[in-house]
Amino acid sequence: MTRLKWGMIGGGEGSQIGPAHRISASLDGHFQLTAAALDIDPERGKSYAVQLGVAEDRAYGNWQEMLAGERDRPDRLDLVTIATPNATHFEISRAFLEAGFHVLCEKPLTMTADEAEQIVAITSETGRICAVNYGYSGYPLVRQMRAMVAEGELGRIRLIKAEFAHGFHADAEEADNPRIRWRYDPEQAGTSAVFADAGIHAFHMACFVAGQTPTELSADFASMVGDRQLEDDAMINIRLSDGALCRLWTSAIAVGRMHGLTLQVFGEKGGLSWQQQHPEQLHWTPLNGRTQILERGDAALSPQAVRASRIPIGHAEGMPVAFANIYHDLAEVLRAKKLGSAADPLALDYPTALDGLWSMRAIEAAAKSAKSGGAWVGM
Amino acid sequence: MTRLKWGMIGGGEGSQIGPAHRISASLDGHFQLTAAALDIDPERGKSYAVQLGVAEDRAYGNWQEMLAGERDRPDRLDLVTIATPNATHFEISRAFLEAGFHVLCEKPLTMTADEAEQIVAITSETGRICAVNYGYSGYPLVRQMRAMVAEGELGRIRLIKAEFAHGFHADAEEADNPRIRWRYDPEQAGTSAVFADAGIHAFHMACFVAGQTPTELSADFASMVGDRQLEDDAMINIRLSDGALCRLWTSAIAVGRMHGLTLQVFGEKGGLSWQQQHPEQLHWTPLNGRTQILERGDAALSPQAVRASRIPIGHAEGMPVAFANIYHDLAEVLRAKKLGSAADPLALDYPTALDGLWSMRAIEAAAKSAKSGGAWVGM
Amino acid sequence: MTRLKWGMIGGGEGSQIGPAHRISASLDGHFQLTAAALDIDPERGKSYAVQLGVAEDRAYGNWQEMLAGERDRPDRLDLVTIATPNATHFEISRAFLEAGFHVLCEKPLTMTADEAEQIVAITSETGRICAVNYGYSGYPLVRQMRAMVAEGELGRIRLIKAEFAHGFHADAEEADNPRIRWRYDPEQAGTSAVFADAGIHAFHMACFVAGQTPTELSADFASMVGDRQLEDDAMINIRLSDGALCRLWTSAIAVGRMHGLTLQVFGEKGGLSWQQQHPEQLHWTPLNGRTQILERGDAALSPQAVRASRIPIGHAEGMPVAFANIYHDLAEVLRAKKLGSAADPLALDYPTALDGLWSMRAIEAAAKSAKSGGAWVGM
Amino acid sequence: MTRLKWGMIGGGEGSQIGPAHRISASLDGHFQLTAAALDIDPERGKSYAVQLGVAEDRAYGNWQEMLAGERDRPDRLDLVTIATPNATHFEISRAFLEAGFHVLCEKPLTMTADEAEQIVAITSETGRICAVNYGYSGYPLVRQMRAMVAEGELGRIRLIKAEFAHGFHADAEEADNPRIRWRYDPEQAGTSAVFADAGIHAFHMACFVAGQTPTELSADFASMVGDRQLEDDAMINIRLSDGALCRLWTSAIAVGRMHGLTLQVFGEKGGLSWQQQHPEQLHWTPLNGRTQILERGDAALSPQAVRASRIPIGHAEGMPVAFANIYHDLAEVLRAKKLGSAADPLALDYPTALDGLWSMRAIEAAAKSAKSGGAWVGM
Repeated sequence: MTRLKWGMIGGGEGSQIGPAHRISASLDGHFQLTAAALDIDPERGKSYAVQLGVAEDRAYGNWQEMLAGERDRPDRLDLVTIATPNATHFEISRAFLEAGFHVLCEKPLTMTADEAEQIVAITSETGRICAVNYGYSGYPLVRQMRAMVAEGELGRIRLIKAEFAHGFHADAEEADNPRIRWRYDPEQAGTSAVFADAGIHAFHMACFVAGQTPTELSADFASMVGDRQLEDDAMINIRLSDGALCRLWTSAIAVGRMHGLTLQVFGEKGGLSWQQQHPEQLHWTPLNGRTQILERGDAALSPQAVRASRIPIGHAEGMPVAFANIYHDLAEVLRAKKLGSAADPLALDYPTALDGLWSMRAIEAAAKSAKSGGAWVGM
Repeated sequence: MTRLKWGMIGGGEGSQIGPAHRISASLDGHFQLTAAALDIDPERGKSYAVQLGVAEDRAYGNWQEMLAGERDRPDRLDLVTIATPNATHFEISRAFLEAGFHVLCEKPLTMTADEAEQIVAITSETGRICAVNYGYSGYPLVRQMRAMVAEGELGRIRLIKAEFAHGFHADAEEADNPRIRWRYDPEQAGTSAVFADAGIHAFHMACFVAGQTPTELSADFASMVGDRQLEDDAMINIRLSDGALCRLWTSAIAVGRMHGLTLQVFGEKGGLSWQQQHPEQLHWTPLNGRTQILERGDAALSPQAVRASRIPIGHAEGMPVAFANIYHDLAEVLRAKKLGSAADPLALDYPTALDGLWSMRAIEAAAKSAKSGGAWVGM
Repeated sequence: MTRLKWGMIGGGEGSQIGPAHRISASLDGHFQLTAAALDIDPERGKSYAVQLGVAEDRAYGNWQEMLAGERDRPDRLDLVTIATPNATHFEISRAFLEAGFHVLCEKPLTMTADEAEQIVAITSETGRICAVNYGYSGYPLVRQMRAMVAEGELGRIRLIKAEFAHGFHADAEEADNPRIRWRYDPEQAGTSAVFADAGIHAFHMACFVAGQTPTELSADFASMVGDRQLEDDAMINIRLSDGALCRLWTSAIAVGRMHGLTLQVFGEKGGLSWQQQHPEQLHWTPLNGRTQILERGDAALSPQAVRASRIPIGHAEGMPVAFANIYHDLAEVLRAKKLGSAADPLALDYPTALDGLWSMRAIEAAAKSAKSGGAWVGM
Repeated sequence: MTRLKWGMIGGGEGSQIGPAHRISASLDGHFQLTAAALDIDPERGKSYAVQLGVAEDRAYGNWQEMLAGERDRPDRLDLVTIATPNATHFEISRAFLEAGFHVLCEKPLTMTADEAEQIVAITSETGRICAVNYGYSGYPLVRQMRAMVAEGELGRIRLIKAEFAHGFHADAEEADNPRIRWRYDPEQAGTSAVFADAGIHAFHMACFVAGQTPTELSADFASMVGDRQLEDDAMINIRLSDGALCRLWTSAIAVGRMHGLTLQVFGEKGGLSWQQQHPEQLHWTPLNGRTQILERGDAALSPQAVRASRIPIGHAEGMPVAFANIYHDLAEVLRAKKLGSAADPLALDYPTALDGLWSMRAIEAAAKSAKSGGAWVGM
């Protein structure tokens, strides 16, 4: 198994997301960091890339240089990860996709639904992969939930309760800290703050687990700290394509909640409950039956969950391993493409530009609904 | 300490709520069951009353007889509990209040806000007590939350997350079971099912803990099982008088939730989290601090919580004891009235007709909002 | 259903255990407090008894007077509860049993195994009931465990892990507080402190659930605070009659443990786990299967658990209700005796003098083993 | 930061521990797999090594070849990991240490305490590092516990409760499965089964957190399944050098326990509680204070815990990241050695041959004590 050649844009020294990608990409030994443009400061970026083992001639000062240098090489990159500031995702993704590269873009894929539609169109035309890093969908038990729903174990899905709540923007005295302030500034953050930043993960997970797409939504946005122009708390009701209703709460002022990403799924034949803070257990209650605790690592779980597990039952596998599953899937699919063979169908659950598009539509619809007193807005 | 003379209407043999009241009323030895009209079947009711120790001449066939027989006795009842079917609460409460009795009515106090306003007016005119049994407010740690908010420990309250979710009406094959069906029949249940029945407890607790009254709300109702005309799942956003926002979810189709009554309160200076299924612990996170676990029975809690506790720390005290606190408060207040002295201010937190009125307003507003696509409705 | 006539010795105003008994005895309306000698101070005891509704001529100054006054009455007491200081239990129990009364004695039944054997002999000779208040065995889910073991659902029991740990005697600066000090004084407490006081409940529960009696044990005692002569922490291995091994830890210095009474039972065919702090859930893992959560109040539980439940699933029922089950059982048995009929077999699980005897043997054996470096001591 | 050159012996294709080491070693980019003898089958081992990126001339058929080939290279390996079957650890570690390599050996370091003493002696003589993979000590919150104890926050440690219990060897029908059977065969496993395999981790953690070494112990071993000659359940009391007592339970028949590695530490001034299944939270109760929840990722934790964390608070970091901390420490120390500089003192907490030695002494002492009815045995 030769390692795939991997390029990275953004995620330089000191960034939070960069190491997460490098851990996830290297965890299974699938990818070798081969080319990189890591930093806004060209020299710092090049030097760090070399430190990370990139050859000097493939350590670039910026993404344009990287595109120019890599476009026509015979030993082409198999995948390019984009982990730059949000506002640049669209332009860079487009450029690399159009040049024929496969791309994994950090979320959000774009700043608008229009842009996301363009990316989707390009992937359709070119057959290139554009994955988007909704990495929580890589947790084995999240995949277990999706598999159980798909197999009909819950019957028709009636209701999904999704939450992503934290309290890290609750301190009024820190509201003007630039690290926090920009998220509530429409100039930089667009039409939504906490829903676009945090709640969108819960949105993706709800759709991912239900196997449904959204049709319309109604949102209530609240700004509770200082003079914030964008919401730091939101409640959104979402109707999904197959009749399920999703009730989604997201907050940045929920003091005491560290990272409250939770999902509860209620169907005709049973209910599921999962929380990201204790990701190794899934509670499953069949209708009129007792609640059972499903443990990650149990060989009797669905093939999707078993494939996504690496270490024995009873140990916390953790988020970095969940994120690695996205790279694990991509490695499988990219290798199959190279061989001209069919990829393992279990590897096809990674999030794509289409998920990025639905997310942008949800954000725009939610902002619109919130402005009109919670009116239902189609998507 | 002589026992107070207690009368009971409804709650006969085989009823669920009757024993709960008798346990709660007798737990501290405050009340002696002295007169009763327990059953729709007069003979069965009389005979059971005698079994429970009521003298034969004060065991009645119905409430009208009981009112006639008790109205002019010199050894008058100190309190009358009404635990009959919902639709009769208004008429019986009104009759006994007007006859000068103090009343504890099961919730709902009435079937409409108009009726509840009449009851409130009567209590104002007569000075009689009309308590309403929102019994969960008797939990020591719920009172602790209220005390902490009142003391300003959380600063201004920004957000309250309240839930009351269960899954006991999720089975489509049981939807026509008469025991369940009537709750979803507008003829019998009025304008709301699960919010009026279950969610209203969460609503009361949110207002109780915040020490605020509601001003307007927006509701989304869903009917997920069979052809139900009333909602079996609801999401409601409520604005409170002092600027707090309450997000309330209630459901009867949440398979796997046994009795998900939970409350989270987020203020400027910290957050609280409590759940009825584990009522002995309260999580408190001061802003920028660590989460602390407050234990019921800890002598360092607020005077309100200490007064409401009976058994040592580390033991589950349970719901019957929580309900007993309502009777405990009433005993204090009734005794003070008899003595013409001032009641212990700590005893004044029991829910009253005013709470019953706000509940009816909330139910009517929610039904109206739900019908108009979630528009905000003033209360 | 006439109330049974109930007498009480000890448990006067201000005592902790007195109200617990009165709540438990009255909760189901089975018992009416009819005679009492409540206090070491005769006048205070009489006056409080009258307050509690006892007739003046049956409010006594001490237990001897009560025995003399009640012995030959035609309206005889059906049950006498003894809640006096430990050292008096033997003498009072013996006297009342010999006078033909049925007795419920607080634990410990006696101060030595010899004395306990005398009590057991008296109950055999007289046919009188002598119950002992190991009240935690009244929890519905503890009875569920016992029923599951008895039904063979776990197969042969291999191992029981039992704990009763708290941290309320950990403060060295409080070690000389008289309220704490006496427990570690051999003159007053005998040969064991924390095992005799707290751990013995875990011991009883292990035997109760296993349905086995102990044969031998090995103990390690430790005194960690100040110059205590008796143990404030102990580890005990116990072999049971049918081959199970019980590993029991008890501690009074476990800071952060409020009331750590837990039981885990491991058999050939599955494992059970229960903790007193969250008594409403029982975890059951069949061999090679998933862990299931059994909820108190579920109608599909064993008849023993269903009989011991009073309020709906999902509500905390709590310890006072668990204790009430002991009185509930006794009421059933006492009524059957009066009628000359057979008592409901489900009512026969209350702890008796035999349990009191095994407890005293265990305490003496543990003290002996601890003194000899952990040697195994037969019982 | 150049990568360190890393060699690996054992851990080939299909092994469970091999990938764990490769993930852990590569996670932070510290180590590059440079030489390897991965498999008992020479060809398979070489071919897999090449697949993993090892140059052909450094892919060896067995450890002897690797030692010969690597011993005199100028581009010498910085670290050699030994992940072969237990019985070979001693011989291979000794050979590589004597040849001047630094070694990380899987536990157990050796099969006897004598052998372990030899390894310790070699490391003293040569100054080479011999780390042993008690990887659970890499969890940030385990390091937090150790730091809090070292700082005196708990005062003198009185008691440590340690557990490592699972139920994966409970099935009598699987007892002869060779994958399980060898562990209970003295020929292959030595004098102890579940204590040597599982409980020893709890033993290491207790000593690690207390910062104390053991002085004597008393053990009770039980064999509950079939005709096992070695124990599948054990209770051990251990006295530590500074007066603390450790009570350690380990089991392989605890059906329902997935991986019950837990640690509770009780001192004069407070108590700590941690469990491996939820490794991101640590409960801390100061004497007479409220329990606090410490969250991994909190910047206010000890420098030791902060250094050992990589991802934001509220996400599960998991066991692979904990194991990576051992490699992270070694990288720091190895780099400092190369530079002749002092290593960061925070990096010196990785487990060494001395821990391996204490473990072997504990195993031998426990087996001896168990055979003599639980007598105390010095270490």
